Amino acid sequence: MPRTVIRSVRPWGGPSSDVVLDDAVVREVVPAGEAAAGEVEVAGDDGILVPSFSDVHVHLDSTRLGLPFRPLTAGPTRWDRIMNDRASWRTAEAPVADRATETLRRMIALGATRVRSHAQVDADSKLEKFEGVLAAREAHRDAASVEIVVFPQVGIHLEPGVPELMDEALRAGGDLVGGIDPCEIDRDPRRHLDTVFGLAERHGKGIDLHLHEPGELGLFSMSLLTERVRALGMQGRVSISHAFALGSGLPGVERAIDGLAELDVAVTTIAPGGRLDLPLERMVTAGVRVGLGMDGQRDYWSPWGNADMLERAWMLAYTQGWSRDDLIELGLAVATWGGASVIDGTTPRLTGVGHRPGLAPGDPAELVVLRGETPTSAVMDRLPGRTVIHAGRVVAADGELV
Amino acid sequence: MPRTVIRSVRPWGGPSSDVVLDDAVVREVVPAGEAAAGEVEVAGDDGILVPSFSDVHVHLDSTRLGLPFRPLTAGPTRWDRIMNDRASWRTAEAPVADRATETLRRMIALGATRVRSHAQVDADSKLEKFEGVLAAREAHRDAASVEIVVFPQVGIHLEPGVPELMDEALRAGGDLVGGIDPCEIDRDPRRHLDTVFGLAERHGKGIDLHLHEPGELGLFSMSLLTERVRALGMQGRVSISHAFALGSGLPGVERAIDGLAELDVAVTTIAPGGRLDLPLERMVTAGVRVGLGMDGQRDYWSPWGNADMLERAWMLAYTQGWSRDDLIELGLAVATWGGASVIDGTTPRLTGVGHRPGLAPGDPAELVVLRGETPTSAVMDRLPGRTVIHAGRVVAADGELV
Repeated sequence: MPRTVIRSVRPWGGPSSDVVLDDAVVREVVPAGEAAAGEVEVAGDDGILVPSFSDVHVHLDSTRLGLPFRPLTAGPTRWDRIMNDRASWRTAEAPVADRATETLRRMIALGATRVRSHAQVDADSKLEKFEGVLAAREAHRDAASVEIVVFPQVGIHLEPGVPELMDEALRAGGDLVGGIDPCEIDRDPRRHLDTVFGLAERHGKGIDLHLHEPGELGLFSMSLLTERVRALGMQGRVSISHAFALGSGLPGVERAIDGLAELDVAVTTIAPGGRLDLPLERMVTAGVRVGLGMDGQRDYWSPWGNADMLERAWMLAYTQGWSRDDLIELGLAVATWGGASVIDGTTPRLTGVGHRPGLAPGDPAELVVLRGETPTSAVMDRLPGRTVIHAGRVVAADGELV
Repeated sequence: MPRTVIRSVRPWGGPSSDVVLDDAVVREVVPAGEAAAGEVEVAGDDGILVPSFSDVHVHLDSTRLGLPFRPLTAGPTRWDRIMNDRASWRTAEAPVADRATETLRRMIALGATRVRSHAQVDADSKLEKFEGVLAAREAHRDAASVEIVVFPQVGIHLEPGVPELMDEALRAGGDLVGGIDPCEIDRDPRRHLDTVFGLAERHGKGIDLHLHEPGELGLFSMSLLTERVRALGMQGRVSISHAFALGSGLPGVERAIDGLAELDVAVTTIAPGGRLDLPLERMVTAGVRVGLGMDGQRDYWSPWGNADMLERAWMLAYTQGWSRDDLIELGLAVATWGGASVIDGTTPRLTGVGHRPGLAPGDPAELVVLRGETPTSAVMDRLPGRTVIHAGRVVAADGELV
């Protein structure tokens, strides 16, 4: 791998520096102009260098980005949306693999090089959606790392054959076992979680479970999950997606957060609208690994989502009600390094407000150069003209893959 | 005024049409290609025609848009921010008038032709901020209508001379009497409101009162305000800005909303982050006039705000948790026509979801052509390339004033 020098960038908005990359890691950071010539030279143009984005909660299998806009035809409940997707996805203008590949391309071009995508496995689609996400990962294998969660969107025990399909997908390249709302979907939380943890144990995989359940119900499901993490020694290998119950303000939230920290259960958020968001600063300070994701992207569930994790970081800061620069930078840290620490249990977690991680010698050369005066102004303005680096190589510049 | 024809636009995303403007109103809407030649022809390029944006809650006097980015130096409370502004505004790189004029230019270029700006009047700045907003209005008098609220940001009775300054500003071109948090700032709600309503009566002006007070306290202040509206016959001439208490979910909210509807007290929202937003669909359906605003714009209070009301409509839809097309269109209607109905008590109010107002013969020729496939996709994508019409004339195109 060629020794690469990024010339004149400002790590987290700091002094202008040259950043030397080698063997897919950051080798050294020196004042601008002081690095010896690299085999590859990258003009930083005094941009802001931060770790690349990690989209740790996306559904590449459902995206319609780039296709004709389609009004939403789903009813208001989660089940309505599940069934609207089932009724619609086969008639999309392009197959899953093409849609997933195109959306992943956009995500990388905008700065995400670490992705955790769910891939729905159910009695209707069988492994077709999963295989579409596999194809997208393969298409961009040199530009991004993609983890795939084998995701039983329609529940595990409502329709026949789902555990067997999940088993097959885990053998065929799935990285994590998914699950969803153990009470509300299967209406049998013990059986749901036993199957999820059983698959994880059998395959030696981690878990990422969607938990939309609100308030006390969500806290109950969370407690069922964490007691299994403790009993099975799964510390550091389980994530909860959404975890809306942690935004409920209920008295049980504080204890739940401490429990997640103790058992090293990660949380991914999408900066949801229409509800109070998670107590993010508290969670990070408590030691919970937290990452950010885009969720669906203009799909059969909603028109939201546009592949730009910098904009999602901006939405995160807004939904959190943040105006302070150090908090907005925390949002950027969650969207970049926070997600990296969710994906890889060996990446050190964010320690709190003011932590500017990921740019020290030895850190992975997964980087993005943003335009802006400060990290906060970069989040506010969400400008184009980004340079994206994966495994020490420039993989995208000015919105195009290279 | 020349007869103007906008060729091939889609009103609210409907069939492609020619829209004829004359004497600053919409004269007729006919199928594309059927309008006789106008003295001025405007290419609609099959864009989506909607009423122009109304930013009905903006602080033109505090903006720093276009100046070097400045990290936030304020503490967490509202009072901290008031005092941070006081300590900082005189050392801005440009005087108030220039800053307000530049930000208003950006707002118009992005599609807002109806504006209600607050202008702070206090013992420190006296009338200097107010006069800066007057200058901005004058500079763009042919491109937008601007109302000015004489706004006692620091309270009315805490420092000497404020009622007299307000009186002077109302004689010098102020359009509305402002007020703020009658309990929390002056800590004497009766005296605060008596002064506000007294000034309004003496000058024959309407009222726009900032009400950040939360929960029961905000509902109490709201009841003090509405009882004065009823006693003084001020129906249709009073607005409440923010009205965060209506987002509290308390049992008193329903009755408060019905009271606002009965007394025709309008509400302006900024689609706030970090808290549950107002029950907007309920409010519009109940008959409350509701408009949207940008609030401060990258000022001494926060880094948020960027002059783009289409993006603020998108944030409104997101913070409301809306995914249905008809709800997202309601957000666009609030950001355009809803605000117009707040500014002008004779503009018919929005009637609810599905109402596509403002493009019928006789409606004011205050219009914007957006790029997109449907109104929802236009909100989602927030594309440039807009054409902005004020009083029947094109005042901006492709991001530049003409």
